[in-house]
Amino acid sequence: MAPDAERSAIGHAITTITPLRVKEFRRGRKLLGYASNGTPADCVKLAVGSLFDRRPDLVVSGINLGANTATNVIYSGTVSAATEARILGIPSIAISLGSFTNPRWRYAATLGRRIAAEVLERGLPPKVLLNVNVPNLPRSEIKGILVTRQGDSVFQEGYALREDPRGQPYYWLTGTYLMQDDDPQTDAWAIANGYVSVTPVTFDLTAHGQRQALAAWRWRI
Amino acid sequence: MAPDAERSAIGHAITTITPLRVKEFRRGRKLLGYASNGTPADCVKLAVGSLFDRRPDLVVSGINLGANTATNVIYSGTVSAATEARILGIPSIAISLGSFTNPRWRYAATLGRRIAAEVLERGLPPKVLLNVNVPNLPRSEIKGILVTRQGDSVFQEGYALREDPRGQPYYWLTGTYLMQDDDPQTDAWAIANGYVSVTPVTFDLTAHGQRQALAAWRWRI
Repeated sequence: MAPDAERSAIGHAITTITPLRVKEFRRGRKLLGYASNGTPADCVKLAVGSLFDRRPDLVVSGINLGANTATNVIYSGTVSAATEARILGIPSIAISLGSFTNPRWRYAATLGRRIAAEVLERGLPPKVLLNVNVPNLPRSEIKGILVTRQGDSVFQEGYALREDPRGQPYYWLTGTYLMQDDDPQTDAWAIANGYVSVTPVTFDLTAHGQRQALAAWRWRI
Repeated sequence: MAPDAERSAIGHAITTITPLRVKEFRRGRKLLGYASNGTPADCVKLAVGSLFDRRPDLVVSGINLGANTATNVIYSGTVSAATEARILGIPSIAISLGSFTNPRWRYAATLGRRIAAEVLERGLPPKVLLNVNVPNLPRSEIKGILVTRQGDSVFQEGYALREDPRGQPYYWLTGTYLMQDDDPQTDAWAIANGYVSVTPVTFDLTAHGQRQALAAWRWRI
C-alpha cells in the first residue's frame, strides 16, 4: 500500500476534508498492492482499517530515497506512516537511505528484512517504533549499527522569490542541510560516518522533564 | 500570517514540490496580515524567513476550533505551526478551544494573552513549546490550570465506502473520540473536567528511555 506519487515533507498529515481513492495493482489476476491519493499515514490507516483482510504483524515504511534524521524526522512521511501503525498498536519500522542519488537499495533491503525479523521476535515497547537510516554504501564499507538519538541539526532554509509566466510572484523553499550537531550519539553523525542508525522514536510529544518546573509558574485563570 | 483555508489534520507538512503564493490583507493602506496557500508550518517558515521585517519575539498559533489533545496532537496543524517556530528558535504557544460548536473565543483569547506575557517574561527551555487547550466554558466555570501530559486516547476510526455520482468508489474517514486514558494528569481529562490544560511539548521524538535496552539487541550488518 503506497501513495500514488511523491509525498515529500508531508509529515503526519491525514486526509479528512476530501475523499480518498484507491487503485488496485494487479499482475494478471494476482493483487500486488494498492495505491491511494492520500498521505503515507492515510495509507496505513486505510490498509489496516479497510483494505486488508487481516491485521498486519508488522508495518515497514520505506525504503525512502533520502535520510530521515535530526530535526527533519518531524517532516517525514516515511516515519509518519510507521508512527501511524504504532498508534494503531502494530510494531513498525521506518527505513531510509542516506542519499538522493545512485541509491544502493539492495543492502538497505537486506538489512531491513533482518531488523524486521528481530522486531517480530522481540516486539517493541508501547508507543515506540524504530527509525532506521542506512548509509548509501556497499555492505563491505558499513562499519556497524548504532542505536542513536535524533540529532539537533536543521536545514538552513530560505525562500526563492520568483515570477510566474503571468508576472505573478511565488515563493519556493530552498535549503541546505547543515550538520550543526555532530555528537556521535546522533542519527545524522552515524550515517555520515558509515554506520547504520537505529533510533527508537515515540509519538508521545510531552516534554516530561519540564512538567515540574512549568507547574511552578504563576498560573491565573 | 495564516493559511488561506482550513488545514485540518495537516500535521507537520511543509510544501516543497509546489510553489507558495502569498496574499496581503489590507484595510485601506494598512497591512493587517498575510494569507498563503501553504500549511501552518509553511506559514511560520515563510513569515519568519521572508515576509516579516523583524524576527518575532513569540509565535502564537491558534486559537483552533477544536481541542488538540492526546494522540491527536501529532495530527495538529495548530501545534505544528508552534513547533516550527520553536525549531527556528522562537518561543511559541499553540492554543485550542475544546469544542467544534458555539465557540467562546473571548476567554481563550484573554487567557492566551496572559500566558503569552508569562512566556515572554520567563522564556521557554530549548526545544520546548506550550500546547494550551481551553474548555469551552465561561470564565466563572473554569476550575483552574493544570500542567499536563499528552494523554493516550485515540479516535475510534473507520472509513465510509461511498460511490461518487459517476459510480466510482471513494473512502471517507469517520471517527469518534474515545476517552480511553482518563488519568487526571492528562490534557484531555483536564479540559473534560473544566480545567485549562498546558502541556510542555517537544519535537525531539527520541524515546530516550529505550536506547539502552535497544542497544542490547543482536545487531548484525
